[in-house]
Amino acid sequence: MHAVLDSVASPDLSPRLRAFLADRAPATPCLLIDLAVVRTNYHAMRAALPEAAIFYAVKANPAPEVVRALAAEGSAFDVASTGEIDLCLAQGAAPESLSYGNPIKKAADIAYAHARGVRRFTFDAEGDLENLAEHAPGSRVWCRFLVDAPQSGTPFGKKFGCAPAMARRLLIRAHELGLAVDGACFHVGSQHTDPAAWVAGIAEAGAIARDLATVGVPTRSLNLGGGFPASYRDQQAPPLTAHAEAIRAAVAEHFDQAPELVVEPGRAIVATAGMIRSEVVLVSRKSDDDEYRWVYLDIGRYSGLAETENEYIAYRLRTAHPATPDGPVVIAGPTCDGDDVIYQNTPYRLPMALRAGDHVDILDAGAYTASYSSVSFNGFPPLPTVFVG
Amino acid sequence: MHAVLDSVASPDLSPRLRAFLADRAPATPCLLIDLAVVRTNYHAMRAALPEAAIFYAVKANPAPEVVRALAAEGSAFDVASTGEIDLCLAQGAAPESLSYGNPIKKAADIAYAHARGVRRFTFDAEGDLENLAEHAPGSRVWCRFLVDAPQSGTPFGKKFGCAPAMARRLLIRAHELGLAVDGACFHVGSQHTDPAAWVAGIAEAGAIARDLATVGVPTRSLNLGGGFPASYRDQQAPPLTAHAEAIRAAVAEHFDQAPELVVEPGRAIVATAGMIRSEVVLVSRKSDDDEYRWVYLDIGRYSGLAETENEYIAYRLRTAHPATPDGPVVIAGPTCDGDDVIYQNTPYRLPMALRAGDHVDILDAGAYTASYSSVSFNGFPPLPTVFVG
Repeated sequence: MHAVLDSVASPDLSPRLRAFLADRAPATPCLLIDLAVVRTNYHAMRAALPEAAIFYAVKANPAPEVVRALAAEGSAFDVASTGEIDLCLAQGAAPESLSYGNPIKKAADIAYAHARGVRRFTFDAEGDLENLAEHAPGSRVWCRFLVDAPQSGTPFGKKFGCAPAMARRLLIRAHELGLAVDGACFHVGSQHTDPAAWVAGIAEAGAIARDLATVGVPTRSLNLGGGFPASYRDQQAPPLTAHAEAIRAAVAEHFDQAPELVVEPGRAIVATAGMIRSEVVLVSRKSDDDEYRWVYLDIGRYSGLAETENEYIAYRLRTAHPATPDGPVVIAGPTCDGDDVIYQNTPYRLPMALRAGDHVDILDAGAYTASYSSVSFNGFPPLPTVFVG
Repeated sequence: MHAVLDSVASPDLSPRLRAFLADRAPATPCLLIDLAVVRTNYHAMRAALPEAAIFYAVKANPAPEVVRALAAEGSAFDVASTGEIDLCLAQGAAPESLSYGNPIKKAADIAYAHARGVRRFTFDAEGDLENLAEHAPGSRVWCRFLVDAPQSGTPFGKKFGCAPAMARRLLIRAHELGLAVDGACFHVGSQHTDPAAWVAGIAEAGAIARDLATVGVPTRSLNLGGGFPASYRDQQAPPLTAHAEAIRAAVAEHFDQAPELVVEPGRAIVATAGMIRSEVVLVSRKSDDDEYRWVYLDIGRYSGLAETENEYIAYRLRTAHPATPDGPVVIAGPTCDGDDVIYQNTPYRLPMALRAGDHVDILDAGAYTASYSSVSFNGFPPLPTVFVG
């Protein structure tokens, strides 16, 4: 079974975070972000893929402090909305370092982005392309394609990207409309742990580039999107170098001329930089002879742990108690919502000594947490973030 | 197949809402709440169950305007947190009209509630009961039990409530601890459309009351919780009178002495009072011969439509186009999140004439929407609410 990490033995808390928690005892729940780890992760990505331009996916953690730290290190930014454009510019990012990567945008949002100096956009549909030509003339564009293209009549394709044949047609159309065709892009999917996952997309992108060249539409770059994983309790991320080697080999094989590479990591930059400190609100059993304890935390699915939907991410947990003796638990959030249960199908064990008022630390929680928080569901405030480093 | 409602023919938009939309053209997305409908729904509940005290479940829609309107009509309030206590008191509710119905509470939150004058609480576990005795001495308490009690070793019971045998023990303990035992409570589950669902819980509550009487612990009331449904596209709510008759008959059968009745409706008060106006951001196909169109709205699962998780609620939709000709669609939200898809397994058809910039109105959306909104996921702001009536 999965034992909880022992706080004393655990190497997972940086000395900086440990000192901060001891000195400041922040009210719970809260997300602590170690900005030094953000910087370290950024440079690890640069070192693994020095030939690629890094556009940090702001959505993973849009805290102004994170964006400012990465701008200072020279990162570019993948933004999903005009809100994220304003955020990045306010934190010192140059407009030319922004890429509006969301293929779903209102015409007015494209015009706003263009007025603020954004000149890179991603599209995957004709309507959006026409809006780009009108409201962001001359901009650089990528067309996002689906690696597994949908068949006609099957509605259950992925949300983003179009069939490769349509991508070819739309990129030619982009060229005709006076846009600067950068090339194709795709996304292997968030938290992708298999380096081989890049190959099919790179092969397709190479084929698209070749086909476009034959009709006189030169391409320039390959945007590989994000998806670089973090390690969680039940998922081990391979080293970034493994991804880099797979990418490099596939590009060499499938492109006639080496394209400029662009990557859009989010989770890989911020996940391990964050830790949520929570407090146990209640430990109970549903009947006097129930083997399982229910452990209710002061954070749940609606105040930051949205990625535990369907128990997708199993975070590592940490308490101040010795790891044993322990016992099986169901872990739930504090709201009156019956779906606000964090883990009941994923086996977790927590120390038998755990009591209301104790802390439970949720590790590697820097990505896709605070910004998911509900504004006030059940009257609970959003998850605050505090920064060290 | 399910046809979209025609705007002109639809009786679903009150003249007040229609006039407001025409005059004010609010920016989208936004939730419009007709406070007159909130009042009407409250009085319909009173008329259906005049013998019951109504504690509005604030979590369903915690807008201050809604709470103020209901306080003015004489409603009491079921609150889930200290935040909701402060909200209700600020909107004119008397402390004695509040019931702290969340069985998951920190000791400090109990003390805070007690200091603000709250004297009714619900518990379902020994730890919370002890905290109530210490921090809210003498208060009135209900113990929430599970209608289908978990067996030992099965962790997958519901989040709230304990086994009935434990409820008996804990209520006796509450009496010993000097708390005022109101009795048992249960919850049939949100959006419960079968009036027969009340019977098993009422029978169990009656048995608990009888058993407690035999050991000298008198009980006073029966809290039936919420769960009163609203009608959605694929779910027809029976009339409130059907619920009332089922409740009345079961109470008469299973209680020796008629208890005071308490109900905690949320959805049934506010759902039909609300409409979300959204805008189509993009209509696309994934390939040139795809039968399905993807319709992307400027609202999605993270900005208010949280109850479309697993496509649980199928809202009625309304456009300004004639209902036909129409065609099948997948409906998705505006973020870069691949899970931000609203309906892909639930068949929806929308007019072929639908274009980017058109409005799509989401009906009966007054419950569990705006307060679920993320603070800033993908840089999109939370769903604002505007009020008429």
